[in-house]
Amino acid sequence: MNIEDTIKDMARAARAAADEMVRISTDQKNAALLSIAAGLEREAVFLQEENRRDLAAAEQMGLSAAMIDRLTVTDATISAMVTGLNEVVALHDPVGTIGPTSIRPNGLQVARMRIPLGVIGIIYESRPNVTIDAAGLCLKAGNAVILRGGSEAIHSNRALAAVISRGLQDSGLPEKSVQVVPVVDRVAVSELLGQEEYIDLIIPRGGEGLIRFVVENSSIPVLKHYKGVCHIYVDADADLDMAQNLCFNAKVQRPGVCNAMETMLVHRSVAEAFLPPMAQRFESAGVTLRGCEVTCRLLPPVEKAQESDWSAEYLDLILSVRVVDDMDVALAHIAKYSSNHTEAIVTRDYDRARRFVREVDSSVVLVNASTRFNDGGQLGLGAEIGISTSKLHAFGPMGVEDLTTQKFVVLGSGQIRE
Amino acid sequence: MNIEDTIKDMARAARAAADEMVRISTDQKNAALLSIAAGLEREAVFLQEENRRDLAAAEQMGLSAAMIDRLTVTDATISAMVTGLNEVVALHDPVGTIGPTSIRPNGLQVARMRIPLGVIGIIYESRPNVTIDAAGLCLKAGNAVILRGGSEAIHSNRALAAVISRGLQDSGLPEKSVQVVPVVDRVAVSELLGQEEYIDLIIPRGGEGLIRFVVENSSIPVLKHYKGVCHIYVDADADLDMAQNLCFNAKVQRPGVCNAMETMLVHRSVAEAFLPPMAQRFESAGVTLRGCEVTCRLLPPVEKAQESDWSAEYLDLILSVRVVDDMDVALAHIAKYSSNHTEAIVTRDYDRARRFVREVDSSVVLVNASTRFNDGGQLGLGAEIGISTSKLHAFGPMGVEDLTTQKFVVLGSGQIRE
Repeated sequence: MNIEDTIKDMARAARAAADEMVRISTDQKNAALLSIAAGLEREAVFLQEENRRDLAAAEQMGLSAAMIDRLTVTDATISAMVTGLNEVVALHDPVGTIGPTSIRPNGLQVARMRIPLGVIGIIYESRPNVTIDAAGLCLKAGNAVILRGGSEAIHSNRALAAVISRGLQDSGLPEKSVQVVPVVDRVAVSELLGQEEYIDLIIPRGGEGLIRFVVENSSIPVLKHYKGVCHIYVDADADLDMAQNLCFNAKVQRPGVCNAMETMLVHRSVAEAFLPPMAQRFESAGVTLRGCEVTCRLLPPVEKAQESDWSAEYLDLILSVRVVDDMDVALAHIAKYSSNHTEAIVTRDYDRARRFVREVDSSVVLVNASTRFNDGGQLGLGAEIGISTSKLHAFGPMGVEDLTTQKFVVLGSGQIRE
Repeated sequence: MNIEDTIKDMARAARAAADEMVRISTDQKNAALLSIAAGLEREAVFLQEENRRDLAAAEQMGLSAAMIDRLTVTDATISAMVTGLNEVVALHDPVGTIGPTSIRPNGLQVARMRIPLGVIGIIYESRPNVTIDAAGLCLKAGNAVILRGGSEAIHSNRALAAVISRGLQDSGLPEKSVQVVPVVDRVAVSELLGQEEYIDLIIPRGGEGLIRFVVENSSIPVLKHYKGVCHIYVDADADLDMAQNLCFNAKVQRPGVCNAMETMLVHRSVAEAFLPPMAQRFESAGVTLRGCEVTCRLLPPVEKAQESDWSAEYLDLILSVRVVDDMDVALAHIAKYSSNHTEAIVTRDYDRARRFVREVDSSVVLVNASTRFNDGGQLGLGAEIGISTSKLHAFGPMGVEDLTTQKFVVLGSGQIRE
């Protein structure tokens, strides 16, 4: 069968599975998740054998050490996948819950019921654990899912698919509720993006190139985030010790992630007191600074920031620093350069805290807390499927509820429209 | 200036206006809406003069009477626009409202705040009243909007744009928060669909051709509905008098709209009692029936339905009728042919009502009520911007709240991520 037909068949089968899923109870879904978890532990040797085939190919292709690290399935990786599935089992099942009911003047009862989105396509790169994490969350929300991992993880993903398939069968879930695309060819992605008739949502996870490709080629709605250029604004009224701790945490604790701080904005009136000790602490952690003119004057010998630095997502121990004359300049800077991901203010001033919260157009806006808290687990959503920086449907970290939607339920007693 | 630059400039200006809109209060927004309403009344003569230029061109081009009717601006049209704006003023402003707050173990307070979507592009066909209705709802939700009406209404829309612009200026709202595309060329639409950097949402309103064009050419998220192939299932346990009233209302009260019934499914056990009197009543209203074999046998001389009838949106006094052996067949028929728009069951049976509500995958599912209630006003949303049959972001009628999204607001006291 050619790739076009393979993908179309998968999409059609997923749709049929999604239709069946509305009759599956929470208990059955949880049983399937636990059965998959048990399968992962039972098949640990097989999974690592298959993973080694990918690793061997990756080495031959000369992939970077970082990529090979992400691709590797160890006992710890398997254990983390099992833990993740158990966490998803513990999550509240949103499907079928009905919100507040209103009574119309003619007596109609109107409410909204949470329902699965339907069929979700996930397109991602190397990490094989995404196969399990994404499948688990999508299943819990009652969706059918088509997973398309990177070609470099194909053997690992096929092995994981076999474990998932067995878990679904053992617990009476539709076999096609989770499918892994078995084709390595990139044409499979384009085909998937064209199945608007069957697929309700595409979630790409990976680098900006992959995500742009998906957005430009999909007629199916896409939930995405391009990048995180996150700011902390240290206000004139900041507690400077707190500011130092927050900025250090936001930059240094895990610099390679999307919610790490990339630009620090400092009010002029505190720059002289705040920047030198802060810079010293950053230096001790190996952070390279790139500063505006005022910063460079206060902190020689800091490299001068170029225009491109203000929109850079370094994902590294590099930080751009700008001293601003007032909060208006800070807000304008954020409006111009931020990626609508995560922004924080450090202040003791009520009005400025309130204004920052209201006016900053980002998925998570924080007062006196580290940007690193933009994370589904940290914000109480449980497991997350990703972070959306586009505003439709979801904005910010997306949990199980964001993989559902609501339909209107109307209960009447014979009402007609006059 | 060429079309590309014109559209890009409009999109950029809309983005800047949207950024300003977060500082505009509910009172200011309402004042602007009332000022536009006053302008419509003041400029009634001018609006109708400009509209006559469109009507003259339409007649010359030989547009259908129905299209000319939709294009015509009368005193009554203006009065309806004014009433609509007043209704929008009366709606609750969702922007800035904060939902339930949860406290994380580390003391962080986490909540979600409603914010405008940002910049909305609306692409529609002839009716000039959409210009006012859509602008009003988008403004109330704090958005900037770019309106692109049909070329046949260009003079009417430019005149309406002048009235809107004056109203915005008089009330201190950003002048570019509402813009009407002044270009007739269809290239303007393609250009608009490419402004992903500035526009957050596209809403197309019109025929299936327009909507498919928008979906296929937009990298911006689209909220849409293709068509309404709505069903009523008359169950074995239906109150047959009620069923007759509901089916008659759903088909006849306004056959040309998307929530009118297009297919009636009848349980075999009541078909003989229900169909003959129902058919007689339909006949008296001029409804043509197209039936399955059993229907044709019970109701000679009814025309036999073709396969294409089951997915037809007649928008006319035509109805396809199928007798089904049981509810499973009815549900399977709906799953196969419905457009996920509106479906109703008539029954006195609790279990079947519950099952229908749970399993039917449509934006509005009704028990013992007419499909004609799928409407923002009827369901209590106030004015509506349209009905979504895709599941992302909104499913069903969309009111002012559906033109907003939520961001996370996190209030801390110096928390860092461990």
